[in-house]
Amino acid sequence: MRGVGPVFESYVDYRSSLSFIGTILTRLALAPATVLLVALYYGEPIRPFVVTSLVMVVLGFGLERLREDRELGRREALLMVSLTWLAVPLVGTIPYLVAGQGTLADPVNALFESMSGFTTTGSTVMGTISVDYHSHSILLWRQLTQWIGGMGIIVLMVAILSELSVGGAQVMNEEAPGFSIEKLTPRIQETARALWSIYAGFTVTAAVVFYVLGATGYAPNMDLYNAVAHALTTMPTGGFSPEARSVEAFSPVIQWAVMPFMLIAGTNFALFWYALNGEPRRLTGNREFRAYVLAVAAVGGLLAVLLYTGLGLADVPTNIAVLPGNLENSLRQALFQSLAIVTTTGYASMDFNTWGESAQLVLLFAMFLGGSAGSAAGSIKIVRWYVVQKTMTRELFTTVHPDAVRPIRMAEGPVDEETIQGIFVFVMVFITLFGVSSVLLFLDGLRTGMDLSAMEATSAAIATLGNIGPGFGVVGPMNSFEPFSDAAKLYMVFLMWIGRLEILSVLVIFTPNFWQR
Amino acid sequence: MRGVGPVFESYVDYRSSLSFIGTILTRLALAPATVLLVALYYGEPIRPFVVTSLVMVVLGFGLERLREDRELGRREALLMVSLTWLAVPLVGTIPYLVAGQGTLADPVNALFESMSGFTTTGSTVMGTISVDYHSHSILLWRQLTQWIGGMGIIVLMVAILSELSVGGAQVMNEEAPGFSIEKLTPRIQETARALWSIYAGFTVTAAVVFYVLGATGYAPNMDLYNAVAHALTTMPTGGFSPEARSVEAFSPVIQWAVMPFMLIAGTNFALFWYALNGEPRRLTGNREFRAYVLAVAAVGGLLAVLLYTGLGLADVPTNIAVLPGNLENSLRQALFQSLAIVTTTGYASMDFNTWGESAQLVLLFAMFLGGSAGSAAGSIKIVRWYVVQKTMTRELFTTVHPDAVRPIRMAEGPVDEETIQGIFVFVMVFITLFGVSSVLLFLDGLRTGMDLSAMEATSAAIATLGNIGPGFGVVGPMNSFEPFSDAAKLYMVFLMWIGRLEILSVLVIFTPNFWQR
Ligand SMILES: [K+]
Ligand SMILES: [K+]
Repeated sequence: MRGVGPVFESYVDYRSSLSFIGTILTRLALAPATVLLVALYYGEPIRPFVVTSLVMVVLGFGLERLREDRELGRREALLMVSLTWLAVPLVGTIPYLVAGQGTLADPVNALFESMSGFTTTGSTVMGTISVDYHSHSILLWRQLTQWIGGMGIIVLMVAILSELSVGGAQVMNEEAPGFSIEKLTPRIQETARALWSIYAGFTVTAAVVFYVLGATGYAPNMDLYNAVAHALTTMPTGGFSPEARSVEAFSPVIQWAVMPFMLIAGTNFALFWYALNGEPRRLTGNREFRAYVLAVAAVGGLLAVLLYTGLGLADVPTNIAVLPGNLENSLRQALFQSLAIVTTTGYASMDFNTWGESAQLVLLFAMFLGGSAGSAAGSIKIVRWYVVQKTMTRELFTTVHPDAVRPIRMAEGPVDEETIQGIFVFVMVFITLFGVSSVLLFLDGLRTGMDLSAMEATSAAIATLGNIGPGFGVVGPMNSFEPFSDAAKLYMVFLMWIGRLEILSVLVIFTPNFWQR
Repeated sequence: MRGVGPVFESYVDYRSSLSFIGTILTRLALAPATVLLVALYYGEPIRPFVVTSLVMVVLGFGLERLREDRELGRREALLMVSLTWLAVPLVGTIPYLVAGQGTLADPVNALFESMSGFTTTGSTVMGTISVDYHSHSILLWRQLTQWIGGMGIIVLMVAILSELSVGGAQVMNEEAPGFSIEKLTPRIQETARALWSIYAGFTVTAAVVFYVLGATGYAPNMDLYNAVAHALTTMPTGGFSPEARSVEAFSPVIQWAVMPFMLIAGTNFALFWYALNGEPRRLTGNREFRAYVLAVAAVGGLLAVLLYTGLGLADVPTNIAVLPGNLENSLRQALFQSLAIVTTTGYASMDFNTWGESAQLVLLFAMFLGGSAGSAAGSIKIVRWYVVQKTMTRELFTTVHPDAVRPIRMAEGPVDEETIQGIFVFVMVFITLFGVSSVLLFLDGLRTGMDLSAMEATSAAIATLGNIGPGFGVVGPMNSFEPFSDAAKLYMVFLMWIGRLEILSVLVIFTPNFWQR
């Protein structure tokens, strides 16, 4: 009945996907509007946020109108997810570009920083990070992109990707029984609301704890702005800090205080829902939760030994005042960095560029672990390693007993063999992509005369693909990704994007059969 | 009805396993007896080989008598395989220990060199390698261990492990249809004889080609001894050379001549059987063979660009005479090293320690490829990567079409889903073991003040686990594993052992359920 034929006709109803993205954009307009109030408070320019709000509303309404009777099938949902994490970071560059402060005035840098924010990666291309140099409002926008991105990803994982069975993601729902769209809450919106309130609750708690510690003299430079900024980037395992030296800028008390919140941020939020509803055993008895705590403790313990004995320090003289031999300091740095890396938050309590290769190697391997499913943590994630390890053990058993049938069990019962294959495929794709990306970044460094070491290139690849943030050397926790070429930055934007969305759900839209009947 | 009860009673009939090992040892006594003749020719001490022959015969007959009515079940076969590759290398140390020449007089070094030989790894702990310093006969023994080990592993893979379905090894038979015990030749002995003659034929051909090139003046220092020595270590993808500078010691013509034999050595020998029996298309059309040739070409092409342009050279001044800019030399070094690493032979046509990190990174990744199944090549092997890649592609398809059924096809038809899982498990176990071993070797280097770089530790782990031979830096192709501690050497003996036997078939004997009903 259409009068004029559409420009591009496809089997996939991409107009429905775009229409939903429109709705998301209109809702998101609230975020720059909030930052606008902060800008007013500090007497800073409000134009960046006015423009962004307007673009979001206008673009959002425009997209929303593409389809009246919109409906999401499997492919439309996959397309919507991929495009959302592309459209939102693109619109999210507007505050940086309009404000035009420092390195972020460059479009490629602005896109890198925005993608790093919304994917909760935390890698930065800013030069000098300081409220003396950048406005409070722009830095707050940067923190807020992580908070929004983190919440988005939790809802996405629990409510959408696990339903679409992408790369074995269904196991994430199996481990949180009942907490799926059909059973617990009939609609995505209710699931989202439940998770949202838990997430917001922990964020407020963190901000209050940090602020009170500052106000009572335990951390002189922890003011309200800093307390909120760090709460906003802890819960999404984000890692952006308005301080150039990250959490090292604060007292040891604050460093200890951040740790439990990182631990929470890397836990499956659905389990907190049960714990808060009178079923704490569902949290403490959960297989993935236990494996996660064990992983944090193991990495932390190994680092503590390396730091306390000095074996893990490259540069003993400059650190001699605190490390090695100081037990509290060794434990604090080791546990903080273990949590920061395993949960993929990426904060730093000291510059681990001064650590030796042994301790850095431990960190590098820990970067492949990832936190729990159902959190905003990136990388491979503990639940996948759990299934991989169980399957390896089973393979040893069936080598002896070839006819034995031994299902892998999770909270809700045996795991589907197809899910297991999906998990193995995901892990292999992740590792392969990491390897290829390391070589590509290294070669680009050669091409541009950046003179990257293999360790630096490798760490940049996993830091962005795993949504972790910092790496080693030139991309260390107190450094910046700014020296990379534009090509390398755009490639890492791509890595952050697909890493955030479990890789396969993005790759699939590049296959021809996605668009055919 | 036994008069005296056995010391150790088990559900596994380990006496049958040991009895078969006894038979193998008695047959092997022929090897030192042959070297004895060479020692007589050169007027060198014959005691090392007399003692070894005697020990093999006596120990062999002793073990053989442990069980009269021996029969190999599944577990007995697995036990036999693991213990064979432990017992033979142990007995194989006797010539080194009795001769007492240089570093090999030390028992740990002797075991390392012997295990490296029989597993066709080619990592060495010898100090100065030269016939001026070591006797011709001892060096020949060293080459011969690789030749024997290579033949053993080909028979093992095609005839035994693939039947036991270890880590997806059954796919190796599927790719060589009919060439299994039941179909083509009714008994293992006949399969073994067919493969043995092809293997021996290529070895003789290689020796003749090398010798003729030497005799006709194309390679002045390639005498009969060297021709035989290099033929014996090329076909098993071994890599031991009686020359300290490996194949660099010979003319470019010899370097080119070694390449086709390396290519053959990394090919499934069962395919040659078909080719020689009038079905050449079964070789040229084989999926794994094509992927293997492609891998060699891709790695070689990438290296050629890096060498020709000079981007892959760390140390341009010292190499300026030949590289960069010399097309023949760039191509020769690139293709030679690609073949040496992909087939896991481990020869060197130049010291790639002088290459830059970019070219070394390419080599490091290539070390995970491995040659074809049904050859003596180590590492993960191309056929596994082929299945992994096909399964990844399928996962992308089923993400769009969740109900589609799409079997992975090989020469003989669809691959069993259990086999696919076995392959994924193997790859993950291999990579995990590589990672853990890198860290352990690195930490041991710290402990002993060896001051290894991360790249050196990493390359030592993959060079031994993948049965490749040389790594980078201190374990470079012209260097030695001698500086490692005894603990690290014994650990690498373990890696060579389990790496050679597809890991899982050894690990399984350490599980309690292997020994229980
Ligand atoms: K992060
Ligand atoms: K080798």
